[in-house]
Amino acid sequence: MQTSEAKISELEKRLNGLEAKEQIRELLHRYGFAADTGDAKAWSEVWNEHAVYERGGETVISGRAAFFTAIEDPHGTHKVEIENRGSLHSINPVTVEVNGDRAWAEGSTLVWVCRDRGYDVYTLSHNHWDFAKTRDKWEIVRRISRPVGPGTAKLVYTNWRA
Amino acid sequence: MQTSEAKISELEKRLNGLEAKEQIRELLHRYGFAADTGDAKAWSEVWNEHAVYERGGETVISGRAAFFTAIEDPHGTHKVEIENRGSLHSINPVTVEVNGDRAWAEGSTLVWVCRDRGYDVYTLSHNHWDFAKTRDKWEIVRRISRPVGPGTAKLVYTNWRA
Amino acid sequence: MQTSEAKISELEKRLNGLEAKEQIRELLHRYGFAADTGDAKAWSEVWNEHAVYERGGETVISGRAAFFTAIEDPHGTHKVEIENRGSLHSINPVTVEVNGDRAWAEGSTLVWVCRDRGYDVYTLSHNHWDFAKTRDKWEIVRRISRPVGPGTAKLVYTNWRA
Repeated sequence: MQTSEAKISELEKRLNGLEAKEQIRELLHRYGFAADTGDAKAWSEVWNEHAVYERGGETVISGRAAFFTAIEDPHGTHKVEIENRGSLHSINPVTVEVNGDRAWAEGSTLVWVCRDRGYDVYTLSHNHWDFAKTRDKWEIVRRISRPVGPGTAKLVYTNWRA
Repeated sequence: MQTSEAKISELEKRLNGLEAKEQIRELLHRYGFAADTGDAKAWSEVWNEHAVYERGGETVISGRAAFFTAIEDPHGTHKVEIENRGSLHSINPVTVEVNGDRAWAEGSTLVWVCRDRGYDVYTLSHNHWDFAKTRDKWEIVRRISRPVGPGTAKLVYTNWRA
Repeated sequence: MQTSEAKISELEKRLNGLEAKEQIRELLHRYGFAADTGDAKAWSEVWNEHAVYERGGETVISGRAAFFTAIEDPHGTHKVEIENRGSLHSINPVTVEVNGDRAWAEGSTLVWVCRDRGYDVYTLSHNHWDFAKTRDKWEIVRRISRPVGPGTAKLVYTNWRA
């Protein structure tokens, strides 16, 4: 039979797990808020200093300075095609698995942009994210993303069965 | 070193925080269920007696009686343009922050309505909500909402960095 | 006044409740991952051996073998109209209520499929799910679903007020 001390430690560990999932989900929300408000600093800080973003099989952004520029550049795709038109980065509910100071998440994302009087789906994607906790803060280390299309889900969702 | 008593109190406090977030998210789901089923009583009770709903910079509804009427009125926008056509009020995942018996949440919402054989996006919005716990029940005190458009995200998402 | 033992038991019970909700939400995410990757085994195992899926007032699938076939059949609706075109099964945030080894959830679902260079809403639905925990694993026992349309929300959302 467990002592009170041992039971308390076990409860604390389980609570840490639930809170870590919550922190990671909120990290993904900050990703969206920062993108839609054009906040390059906040957006780049969601990513690890050496983070890699792979989309459609290619590395499209790597390293925090490049993540900053992706949002800040007035002539870049983000400002011109997304933020300046009015955008909404939405993340559907994701499954998160935490292992100590590492974690992964899988789920889908949808970016809406304004067009005429309505809205267009700008991107609709399957995603896998890897996270690391650095100096008490969760960050995205790697994101693998594919536009929804024939066969693309299998290329992205690799960990959800575990 | 903490005593068992102190550790238990700390765990309880953290658990209260997670449960409060859960309650607030479920409040926002009830909002949607009540709207789509046309339940004016349930919908108005999601709001505080003196709640204010600001949309596009103007107060569009205030006080519980007016919230009730907004859903109940057979000639109002809700019945005619939304519920009677068949609607789906959806709320994307939101970030919730709880401070005692006050809380706020930020995130996006999407209302679908039926048209012909398909569905139209009726509203797509950025939102900030303030909540208060009154007689052991969370209620919306204020909602600030803007349709997704150029620059609107910055007018709504004011607390997420905190 | 409660003893430490009694307090620890109470906290454990509350933590069990939060974890069960998390497990049920992840079950619904697995549902989507399995559908989009065409994994008939994983998809059929989300359902109880004797599960029933009611859609639009009729039983459309029942029993695990039929759930397996619904995904596996190369000439079935799933492969031909959904998965092979490229699909995204998304589940909006749901309210979950747990009572011991039984639970229910209510919320909306949206299936996107590729068409030309964009995406179509294939189904948009109101849903009620009943779950049971069998051999330490949550499974869907019954799903009741209706396409969003005039009056359909009232036919599906029956438990959310409780």
